Amino acid sequence: MQKIVQKFGGTSVGTIDRIRNVCSLINKELKNGNQVAVVSSAMSGETNKLVSLAENFDINKNKLEFDMIVSTGEQISIALISMALKEIGLKGKPLLGWQIPITGSNDFTKAKINKIDGKLILELMNNGEIPIIAGFQGIDKDNNIVTLGRGGSDTSAVAIAAAIRADRCDIYTDVDGVYTTDPRIVKNAKKLDKISYEEMLEFASLGAKVLQTRSVEMAMRHRVTVQVLSSQTGKTGTFLTKEDEKMENELVSGIAYSKDEANITLINILDKPGVATKIFTPLSEANINVDMIVQTGSENGNKINFTYTVSRKDLEQTISIMEKNKIDIEFERIITNNSLAKVSIVGLGMRTHTGVANKMFSALASKNINIHVISTSEIKISVLIDEDSIEKALNSLHSTFELDQK
Amino acid sequence: MQKIVQKFGGTSVGTIDRIRNVCSLINKELKNGNQVAVVSSAMSGETNKLVSLAENFDINKNKLEFDMIVSTGEQISIALISMALKEIGLKGKPLLGWQIPITGSNDFTKAKINKIDGKLILELMNNGEIPIIAGFQGIDKDNNIVTLGRGGSDTSAVAIAAAIRADRCDIYTDVDGVYTTDPRIVKNAKKLDKISYEEMLEFASLGAKVLQTRSVEMAMRHRVTVQVLSSQTGKTGTFLTKEDEKMENELVSGIAYSKDEANITLINILDKPGVATKIFTPLSEANINVDMIVQTGSENGNKINFTYTVSRKDLEQTISIMEKNKIDIEFERIITNNSLAKVSIVGLGMRTHTGVANKMFSALASKNINIHVISTSEIKISVLIDEDSIEKALNSLHSTFELDQK
Repeated sequence: MQKIVQKFGGTSVGTIDRIRNVCSLINKELKNGNQVAVVSSAMSGETNKLVSLAENFDINKNKLEFDMIVSTGEQISIALISMALKEIGLKGKPLLGWQIPITGSNDFTKAKINKIDGKLILELMNNGEIPIIAGFQGIDKDNNIVTLGRGGSDTSAVAIAAAIRADRCDIYTDVDGVYTTDPRIVKNAKKLDKISYEEMLEFASLGAKVLQTRSVEMAMRHRVTVQVLSSQTGKTGTFLTKEDEKMENELVSGIAYSKDEANITLINILDKPGVATKIFTPLSEANINVDMIVQTGSENGNKINFTYTVSRKDLEQTISIMEKNKIDIEFERIITNNSLAKVSIVGLGMRTHTGVANKMFSALASKNINIHVISTSEIKISVLIDEDSIEKALNSLHSTFELDQK
Repeated sequence: MQKIVQKFGGTSVGTIDRIRNVCSLINKELKNGNQVAVVSSAMSGETNKLVSLAENFDINKNKLEFDMIVSTGEQISIALISMALKEIGLKGKPLLGWQIPITGSNDFTKAKINKIDGKLILELMNNGEIPIIAGFQGIDKDNNIVTLGRGGSDTSAVAIAAAIRADRCDIYTDVDGVYTTDPRIVKNAKKLDKISYEEMLEFASLGAKVLQTRSVEMAMRHRVTVQVLSSQTGKTGTFLTKEDEKMENELVSGIAYSKDEANITLINILDKPGVATKIFTPLSEANINVDMIVQTGSENGNKINFTYTVSRKDLEQTISIMEKNKIDIEFERIITNNSLAKVSIVGLGMRTHTGVANKMFSALASKNINIHVISTSEIKISVLIDEDSIEKALNSLHSTFELDQK
């Protein structure tokens, strides 16, 4: 007998029929002889409706109230799941953050989970009942409702799995697992049977929408075995596990990409200490996230060029901030490009194998794809290319690293 | 400085604009130098939407879940009120049942309030903040959310007023107070400045929709001064108070009526002990509420006739239950009438003055209005008349008892 946490996203509980489908997935696990705790998001679309209602007022001044409003979405979905379970003869118990309790930091709209008391959840499970827990919510030390921000329900599920020492945390989504790359672009993209936390973390932060970074970090920290699978098929999906021997042979596990890239180059900056701070402090104050950063010498003696990327939506504001600080930063002119895409290869094997980068660059060069910026980490190499080369690049890299052979 | 509880109903908070209007009523009370605690219903229409969603399942088997769902309506409205208060520079704090806590019996969908801890509410008020409390909800001893059923928010408000020993509980509604009778039918109906709890209780149970019986009982028991007034005008409304000397002169305070009446007469029942039980037990088992009951001798020696009234919606089922029990009850035949109305006069003065009933019957007789059934209590006389005589009856009684002189 295993203890399983099953987490269902908004589309999985988007209608009454889908809620009934979710119940059959729960029942299947019970029939396998396992104990189940359920974590649910709000019905798809509900959270957006609640946000719209709250946006009649200034959300930044009303975060406590905002959390009180948006947390009702999960309150409704867990009660409906409990009702649907009863229809098939199962006994559920819907539980809100405060009833467990799930305690978090008092950062409204983006709280971190501090502690989950697993006692009530385990009691119910041992009693043959199914705890159905509202994702995305907790309470702070003053008994205020706090929500966990984007990807919060996945994080709730993983944290609950850790708290009750579950054998597995199944995250049901729209897709049936993690793929070597986007199957809409590369036809023979393959579903991965397993992937290491570290790799998944890179994928998540590179724009793969399957799991949020936070939930992967949580899983990695507490060594929770996570499975990503489809609520439509219920078939075995992709397992997130700690790296093992087998994995060492995998040079590259997958390829991620993001079209949301714009880059800015500041030409001919006088090279003296503190230049980077002068560039990035005003951007951070404006909450603009900077991704890839490259500094190069300039053709002009003691001057340098500075290139970095931001989200496309932030490009205009970034330019105006740079112009405003032109005298302070001491650059000559700005070049920008907002038709770029980032392609990244991710693999634990890069730690121990050399030549991966070169293999990547050669593959792209052979297809006449120009690389604008390169950035690397221990298990990842990202390159910035023209957006209209994405399809060619993904297909070329996918076969170069033999991902279609998996 | 007084402590005031302000309670707003669903239409008073039905839109964002109306919520802003509510805030100006709160501000007005603060500017008068008073401390305020607010109790709110869900935005009008919201509770019905939530009920519809829950009704995808069998509510009778899912009352815990039902309460979890419908209680979200107030969770949203109190947060929105808090946001709107901030816009005008006031500091509110939305509070749910469990955060106070308000503890109730564990009768889902119709819990009774057992205890309200006034500490947090008073702390906030003394700190210059405005507690904004979700009406209609509490928790049971096992930390389940329970709702209070019909009229629950009025009851919450009165109970909170009792718990914090408020000087007044203002119930804001669509009407500007309690009237001597329905102003839509009797043109010179007058708003009452005050009314005793006992009289209001009779009015409420006779179908006047201003306040629910439960909240009036609660006010009477704890001697809470309640004011019923309009959230549109905010003008002084009608006060519910304990009876005082002045009131003794009031023969009749007002006239209530209900069109929802059907009566059943069982003809020629053999008169032996236990007849009433045989009639009413099966009705009570079917949850059919019986109102006026009259037993008369029959023209036929040792037989009697039995007349009682039910809601019109229950008439058909009542007839079928009677037919099913015909042999047991031993009646000869049934006569029914579902075009009747009940008109009632209410007044504390009836306790000490004689001749009130006669005055009522004479007034109706002079207008050729036939009385089918009469029932009386200490401070009330009700008669059943033909529905199409209502307008004539109300106008006649209103002037007979000089209610237009108030």
